[in-house]
Amino acid sequence: MDSNNLIKQIDFIKEIDKIKYIQRKTKLFNSDRNENDAEHSWHLAVMAIILAEHSNRTIDILKVIKMVLIHDIVEIDAGDIFIYDTQKKHSNTDEERIAANRIFGLLPKEQSEELIAIWEEFEAGNTDEAKFAKSMDRLEPLLQNISNHGGTWTEFGVNYDKVYEKKKVIKEGSDTIWNYAESLIEESVKKGILNRNS
Amino acid sequence: MDSNNLIKQIDFIKEIDKIKYIQRKTKLFNSDRNENDAEHSWHLAVMAIILAEHSNRTIDILKVIKMVLIHDIVEIDAGDIFIYDTQKKHSNTDEERIAANRIFGLLPKEQSEELIAIWEEFEAGNTDEAKFAKSMDRLEPLLQNISNHGGTWTEFGVNYDKVYEKKKVIKEGSDTIWNYAESLIEESVKKGILNRNS
Repeated sequence: MDSNNLIKQIDFIKEIDKIKYIQRKTKLFNSDRNENDAEHSWHLAVMAIILAEHSNRTIDILKVIKMVLIHDIVEIDAGDIFIYDTQKKHSNTDEERIAANRIFGLLPKEQSEELIAIWEEFEAGNTDEAKFAKSMDRLEPLLQNISNHGGTWTEFGVNYDKVYEKKKVIKEGSDTIWNYAESLIEESVKKGILNRNS
Repeated sequence: MDSNNLIKQIDFIKEIDKIKYIQRKTKLFNSDRNENDAEHSWHLAVMAIILAEHSNRTIDILKVIKMVLIHDIVEIDAGDIFIYDTQKKHSNTDEERIAANRIFGLLPKEQSEELIAIWEEFEAGNTDEAKFAKSMDRLEPLLQNISNHGGTWTEFGVNYDKVYEKKKVIKEGSDTIWNYAESLIEESVKKGILNRNS
């Protein structure tokens, strides 16, 4: 019960409210309203809880939840970069690292270090927890784009190969979810909402 | 790895997207934009992780996180009821219970039962986890209203006694956070953003 800790924690809690203004390219399900990072992070956390049984490996689900809840906080400073952007690196930029240090740095030292480490672990994507968290992060917009008749694929002219390339990392987290996701991608081509050619 | 489970889980994941349209009375920090239930639930989950050290009792933080992530899902059917509404019961209504059965009922049976039980536990507010989760649920709008020069207190003419009455349950989850919250309430009166009289 450290009241000095509490003041720092409250400052952090106020600061991260700004994530609610960060618009993603992807729209909500069956909608033309952009999703924001807080909504996205909430959805991934519930998905991780619900879908944990499909993970390829035994995972620390609490760590996965922490990852998905905080993975986009850096975008308060660094902004959202579209996953299919060919000009800018999607993640793990210097700008994001500076943002992580500033925003998580509002917290008491130990907590700040823990969350920066969890964020770095997610970004690196090497551990079982990071792989499953990334599966969630790839699955949600896939489902949203399909509900929106192609969504960002149609809007930004993203073709099958690019989608397949980005989505196949789902397999590293869950073979079961990947089998399902792959069948959705193939169906999307048949339905004409995803093109084989760019 | 049950693919029949997966189809049910995906149906649930799509359905709960609707929580992003449920507007709360409370506004975002320093803002005139209403918060929605997904944003609110995300914020409470991060707060629970960050503030867990201040809990009066040792808590199962994973259960607390599940509680706050799902506590408002019933509002997809039942709608948001303002905490200071004197006409309608704020929570635990028949309407909410029917909503819980319908929405969580989309999930495989075991998961559905688990989440309904967690929702009921939160609503009853008797366990250490539910008490801490409720502390988070009361703290966020307090901080928001103060940042908004009285926010819903001013907008709906809610006085000190009513605020104090609703906020004092924070103490059941955390004495430290309550001491802080109580001082904020007293300061709000001094600043003239919360009235002693209605």
